[in-house]
Amino acid sequence: MKKVVVIGGVAGGASAAARIRRLDEQAQIVMFERGPHVSFSNCSLPFYLSGVVADSKKLLMMTPESFEVKHNIDARVNSEVIAINREEKTVTVQHTQTGEVTTESYDKLVLSPGASPIVPNLPGTDLPHVFTVRNVVDIERLHTAIVERDAQNIAVIGGGFIGIEVAENLRLAGRNVALVEFAPQILTPFDEDMVQILHKEMVDKGVDLIVGDGLANITPTTIGLNSGTEINADIVVLAIGVRPETMLAEKAGLTIGETGAIHVNQNYQTNDPNIYAVGDAIEVYHRLMHKKVRLALAGPAQRQARAVADHMYGIPVTNKGVIGSSSIQVFDYAAAATGLNERTAQQLGLQVEAVYVIAPDKVGLMPSSNPLHFKLIYEVPTGRVLGAQAIGKGNADKRIDVIATLITMNGTIEDLKELELSYSPMFSTAKDVVNIAALVATNLMAGRFKQVRVHEVRSLVEQGAYILDVRERAEFAQGALKGAVNIPLGELRERMAEVPKDVPVYVSCRSAQRSYNAVMALNHNGYTNVANVSGSFLGICLYEYYQDQAQQREPIMTQYNFK
Amino acid sequence: MKKVVVIGGVAGGASAAARIRRLDEQAQIVMFERGPHVSFSNCSLPFYLSGVVADSKKLLMMTPESFEVKHNIDARVNSEVIAINREEKTVTVQHTQTGEVTTESYDKLVLSPGASPIVPNLPGTDLPHVFTVRNVVDIERLHTAIVERDAQNIAVIGGGFIGIEVAENLRLAGRNVALVEFAPQILTPFDEDMVQILHKEMVDKGVDLIVGDGLANITPTTIGLNSGTEINADIVVLAIGVRPETMLAEKAGLTIGETGAIHVNQNYQTNDPNIYAVGDAIEVYHRLMHKKVRLALAGPAQRQARAVADHMYGIPVTNKGVIGSSSIQVFDYAAAATGLNERTAQQLGLQVEAVYVIAPDKVGLMPSSNPLHFKLIYEVPTGRVLGAQAIGKGNADKRIDVIATLITMNGTIEDLKELELSYSPMFSTAKDVVNIAALVATNLMAGRFKQVRVHEVRSLVEQGAYILDVRERAEFAQGALKGAVNIPLGELRERMAEVPKDVPVYVSCRSAQRSYNAVMALNHNGYTNVANVSGSFLGICLYEYYQDQAQQREPIMTQYNFK
Repeated sequence: MKKVVVIGGVAGGASAAARIRRLDEQAQIVMFERGPHVSFSNCSLPFYLSGVVADSKKLLMMTPESFEVKHNIDARVNSEVIAINREEKTVTVQHTQTGEVTTESYDKLVLSPGASPIVPNLPGTDLPHVFTVRNVVDIERLHTAIVERDAQNIAVIGGGFIGIEVAENLRLAGRNVALVEFAPQILTPFDEDMVQILHKEMVDKGVDLIVGDGLANITPTTIGLNSGTEINADIVVLAIGVRPETMLAEKAGLTIGETGAIHVNQNYQTNDPNIYAVGDAIEVYHRLMHKKVRLALAGPAQRQARAVADHMYGIPVTNKGVIGSSSIQVFDYAAAATGLNERTAQQLGLQVEAVYVIAPDKVGLMPSSNPLHFKLIYEVPTGRVLGAQAIGKGNADKRIDVIATLITMNGTIEDLKELELSYSPMFSTAKDVVNIAALVATNLMAGRFKQVRVHEVRSLVEQGAYILDVRERAEFAQGALKGAVNIPLGELRERMAEVPKDVPVYVSCRSAQRSYNAVMALNHNGYTNVANVSGSFLGICLYEYYQDQAQQREPIMTQYNFK
Repeated sequence: MKKVVVIGGVAGGASAAARIRRLDEQAQIVMFERGPHVSFSNCSLPFYLSGVVADSKKLLMMTPESFEVKHNIDARVNSEVIAINREEKTVTVQHTQTGEVTTESYDKLVLSPGASPIVPNLPGTDLPHVFTVRNVVDIERLHTAIVERDAQNIAVIGGGFIGIEVAENLRLAGRNVALVEFAPQILTPFDEDMVQILHKEMVDKGVDLIVGDGLANITPTTIGLNSGTEINADIVVLAIGVRPETMLAEKAGLTIGETGAIHVNQNYQTNDPNIYAVGDAIEVYHRLMHKKVRLALAGPAQRQARAVADHMYGIPVTNKGVIGSSSIQVFDYAAAATGLNERTAQQLGLQVEAVYVIAPDKVGLMPSSNPLHFKLIYEVPTGRVLGAQAIGKGNADKRIDVIATLITMNGTIEDLKELELSYSPMFSTAKDVVNIAALVATNLMAGRFKQVRVHEVRSLVEQGAYILDVRERAEFAQGALKGAVNIPLGELRERMAEVPKDVPVYVSCRSAQRSYNAVMALNHNGYTNVANVSGSFLGICLYEYYQDQAQQREPIMTQYNFK
């Protein structure tokens, strides 16, 4: 009879234990959890702050009792493993309340210690109104503090998933929320061109968003930033990032990888073959970056947990590495991303191209149709799809899941162009936005047209480049790039002589569809230096708006238009 | 300069013409449309009946004028091509209003004549209150007739996509609607086990649904069915199916395939290389069935149209065949399917297995979380994924698009199990329902457990088989299979002796998750003939409910429970 000890009773640990039981009814399974709860819904924690999750007890999915009766698993809470004694194959456990120390033997050990919120060493981070969010106890403490103090002004430090979700849920609860992010943007899975849409949404919904500035200090009523800015804050939430919990592993002589997380092999074994490790504490192989990375996501943790159980019982493990798929709700917008973004691909020295399309998420006639913003990143010259980002009020996650599947199956832009997805007017369009992006990409790859990107337009406008806007006059009147020339697509053929042949021509419309037709017409009429403005006016307005406000700079358009 | 003539100005024809223009600014493009409109949104027609689309003019996406000014395409409506003169490379065109006959020459010809609604040769089908739905004129006529007569009772004949959408939109408009389908079920992309959920939804929403009965005759106030049933009907809509419009092609000596549609090669050329054909009038290669089929869907038509333009201009055509992805809203439910269903796979003699899982479409804590019903069909022994069906109040189409992608990329259940999809509590679960289905399938393939299917349960109950229900007592009390024995999962290990070893044991819970844990525990305790009841009680209630009502038969449960 096998005896398995699991360290960490949330996500990875709990999943591993349950699968072990299903594979082996006789195994003795003991699970130690430092905190008072096992198996809670980490990803749902922030939703308690807005009342979307009304009762914090509902965040708990299992209890030690239900582990016992349902799975015959001995789950012990408030029990911190303080040492792994590899030679004796035992762990030393200390009860967090009684201080009592006991020893438990194992045949196989599974480490799932997770990662802890980073608390920077800055003045005031130890004050009692400063919080982090890792578990149910944390979120209850934070919620109680806000309610008891009736805190009106809350500062959230960090623009990652947790920071954004905490900020959003507090804002939905009617609080004044400042969100501070050190990097120039929130949510690093997204490229800077796409994320501006989310920056705008945060600001539109009343969040005081500050990017490119870091926390310097905390006082009982304010936070100070590196720039010297002071912000009133009755409560501060630190969501800067997480650090893998490796201390126990290190003490036991287990190898820590270059990323600072626990090193594991393809079967999630540490350098001690009797000790497995899973979840946020380990480093994993990124199948597109071809190197080890840290990736604190629930889906991969669950797959790792299952793989550990399978390997223990001789079932071959499939380790496809990770690609990093994620999604988040940001007020009215859904945002999702998978694979490499353009920034990372360039940092890795990959040769990539990207296209950005704006297309209706449903047939335009349907009442809930909204523009979907979709960016596709692919390798040149192979056309291999490497990543995608989707943002919109509709179903962004669906498009990203299609791309995640395609990436995993080594698909190309040609495959994507031909994908036969389900269609009805309520759910999509006959050519879905992902198909359209692939069509643009294959046309670009074939050299049928050239493009400029939204982030390049400002300097074109400032240089007085020739920008041809082919929208209708009424649209043009409601906002246009400064200096742009308006020739509606329907007049272009007869008025083409007005378009100069001796300078580069940049063609724009609302969302780059009509302009593409114009580009092709110009290309076929002897124009040799024509480019389509990717994203066009709608994309440019969304790209520029937040940056213009934040930097108090002169807009490049006569007025914004987000329709 | 090339001269291209396009026959048919909707969907395929319009798309081909636009792409040809983008590839060749000089080409002369003439498009003939028999009806008064070009380029309308076919798939949105039924939504005009409920007012979701308030103005029928909005169904028109382009006009002859906009084709002219935007694309320099000569689109001529009310112009029926009555002959193709292949030797002279001309077409003979008759104006539908003036009767005037003209001739137009072509270098290349594109046929996109579509398919026409089938009107059966039965008494009364020629009465003035009998309608079909193909175009904007049809839907306006139908709508006007309903309003003018204030028709309260409407019969829709045919349970395909158009029939269901017409029925739903008329019901939403407050009419009494009877839907009659000759086959034993509506919506043939779905298997009979899955479609019962939609049958129930139609009935729940007040549609008088009659399956397995055919139209016999129509009188001015009633319809008669084969069974002898008479139904009051002030208006009758025939949506039995469509027939490819091949007459023109046949007259011109173009080859018609075995399916009755126009035969084309891999580049969508007919047997005359100067004549291409696309859309509902052609037959296409099914990449899973390995044979030609008819598939009247908008997405494939658009891809064919593009391929035709590309081939004309020397751009290599990718023809991956079709897999048949579709989706539909049925009142509160979204339903989507891709690839082969189990019925078709069996008819083809393929060796397949299917799993049916019910899992939350989002994290259960989220207010809009709902069960998603998901069926996966895969080949044995290869594990190659062949098809899937998803039905739920949430995002069914997303799951099907993932599977459509996987099928196209030749993925297996092992690939699906490992797919890293985007996750946040608002959009999905850490292991998405598609991953879960693949886990069930791989466990089944590995022989780790056995299953019985929802459609097999009735005879098990009737035979008095030993059915073990492992739900909690309170759940069991709210409805259970007749004769089932209740031992909650938490008590199973201590009470296992109560479970007989000498008879087959069928284990059920609410949605087959707890029962799976119980099955594994029994398997490991010397039970050799245990099966998990796929879909379990929730699935069985949904499967049985409509059939029980329609056949007025005795339920196999003490009471239904759909929660």
